[in-house]
Amino acid sequence: MPPIVISTTLIVRYAETDPMGIVHHKNYITYLEEGRSEYARQRGFPYSQFEATGYFLLVSEVHIRHIKPARYEQSITINTWISEMKSRGMSFEYTVTDTQSGEILATAQTKHICITKAGQIAKIPQVWRDWHTPDEDN
Amino acid sequence: MPPIVISTTLIVRYAETDPMGIVHHKNYITYLEEGRSEYARQRGFPYSQFEATGYFLLVSEVHIRHIKPARYEQSITINTWISEMKSRGMSFEYTVTDTQSGEILATAQTKHICITKAGQIAKIPQVWRDWHTPDEDN
Amino acid sequence: MPPIVISTTLIVRYAETDPMGIVHHKNYITYLEEGRSEYARQRGFPYSQFEATGYFLLVSEVHIRHIKPARYEQSITINTWISEMKSRGMSFEYTVTDTQSGEILATAQTKHICITKAGQIAKIPQVWRDWHTPDEDN
Amino acid sequence: MPPIVISTTLIVRYAETDPMGIVHHKNYITYLEEGRSEYARQRGFPYSQFEATGYFLLVSEVHIRHIKPARYEQSITINTWISEMKSRGMSFEYTVTDTQSGEILATAQTKHICITKAGQIAKIPQVWRDWHTPDEDN
Repeated sequence: MPPIVISTTLIVRYAETDPMGIVHHKNYITYLEEGRSEYARQRGFPYSQFEATGYFLLVSEVHIRHIKPARYEQSITINTWISEMKSRGMSFEYTVTDTQSGEILATAQTKHICITKAGQIAKIPQVWRDWHTPDEDN
Repeated sequence: MPPIVISTTLIVRYAETDPMGIVHHKNYITYLEEGRSEYARQRGFPYSQFEATGYFLLVSEVHIRHIKPARYEQSITINTWISEMKSRGMSFEYTVTDTQSGEILATAQTKHICITKAGQIAKIPQVWRDWHTPDEDN
Repeated sequence: MPPIVISTTLIVRYAETDPMGIVHHKNYITYLEEGRSEYARQRGFPYSQFEATGYFLLVSEVHIRHIKPARYEQSITINTWISEMKSRGMSFEYTVTDTQSGEILATAQTKHICITKAGQIAKIPQVWRDWHTPDEDN
Repeated sequence: MPPIVISTTLIVRYAETDPMGIVHHKNYITYLEEGRSEYARQRGFPYSQFEATGYFLLVSEVHIRHIKPARYEQSITINTWISEMKSRGMSFEYTVTDTQSGEILATAQTKHICITKAGQIAKIPQVWRDWHTPDEDN
């Protein structure tokens, strides 16, 4: 069963561009995070509620391939899906595309662990775990 | 011959921290970039001069592993070295450590290509290529 | 004749919040800039086109009053209008409100001068000058 | 009695510059904040300790005048002093200068109120109040 892909569309902000006139690569970290935010909102359990229950989803690994630069006022789409779900960790994968042409600007993966406010590693809440198909669980 | 490692030390800024009270992971992208900036300054050909000659060093890939969080006012050290040098591309590797204890907070690799202002892929300038030991060149 | 007010609505990003759990005040600078971007797009001469003609609108002064904090995933609206237009300078005013309740979160003013790529002060292009009612021109 | 001025020096980061090749004005907010951080460290009561006692210093107003742009790798100095101290609020003033020439790049004022973690307005802690000369207190 293929994963559910959630898309979110943004307009590149001026403050996100650099002396080359393109999006500075640090902003892709924020774009991916907003991809995850929209994913959680559309699946019905926003990350703000997740944190309100006393948990944080910490980023343990980021891998981004930049294929084509984005520019100020360009509409970009972040496509986000869960690629791995374990009891204490999970992974997201992403493509960032030009909204008009669908051309891929970047691909990325992020890995996460769940911690409590006290910093202890915890299990991913069941409601989030259910977002991944059981047959891919381990 | 081992690569030359250049270190740069920063104090974590308040604006770099997030609701978990730790450095938001987007800032590591900037820390790595400052590691590269300091590397080029100490090797004698600052990146501002590099750009002034009409070239840009574009980031084509970023891979970061976050091991331990950093906090506001913590002193952190970015250790930067060149791990690969080709005619049209190069890679840096990094450790980000707690300056006091030497404990590793993150490890990272970035890959780069050289482009002209017009966006054409170009050879890495010879002065930068010489920073990497010839026997590792290809 | 009252000025034309253009509104743009954003969802607060996680990366924009700080250890207090509220939007770090540096992000209001970006929100105001996006207010101006949307203003220019809706009036029919986007800032990306403005820059393509060889001009920049430099920020010479910023004044922000923070009234109430904004939080992650909150919908905020930036209301933007031109409050002053001179041949070589112009001012914008803003309110940032909670989209749901209309409550004011911040008010702001920014002043700008127009420069060429070479850094020379220039006249504001006529197309932008026409956005302000002539009777308020000077 | 003149106020005590504390200086902190930074090198402009690449990620802080924009398509004009100058520091994007949002970064001055961070520079001022680092001016306050260094002020508190040098006066002996760092802001990290201040927050650890359960208080936050909220920014209620920012006013910045941009006089001359700063560029990548430029050394800049933030000179910070307390300009007003009340029981429940305080103000800082700043100049941002080119470290080499002393030329003023920006001047700024920020106003602050003290709040508890619960969001209640509180008195500025006595240790901070003592940083301002009594004859200017009110």
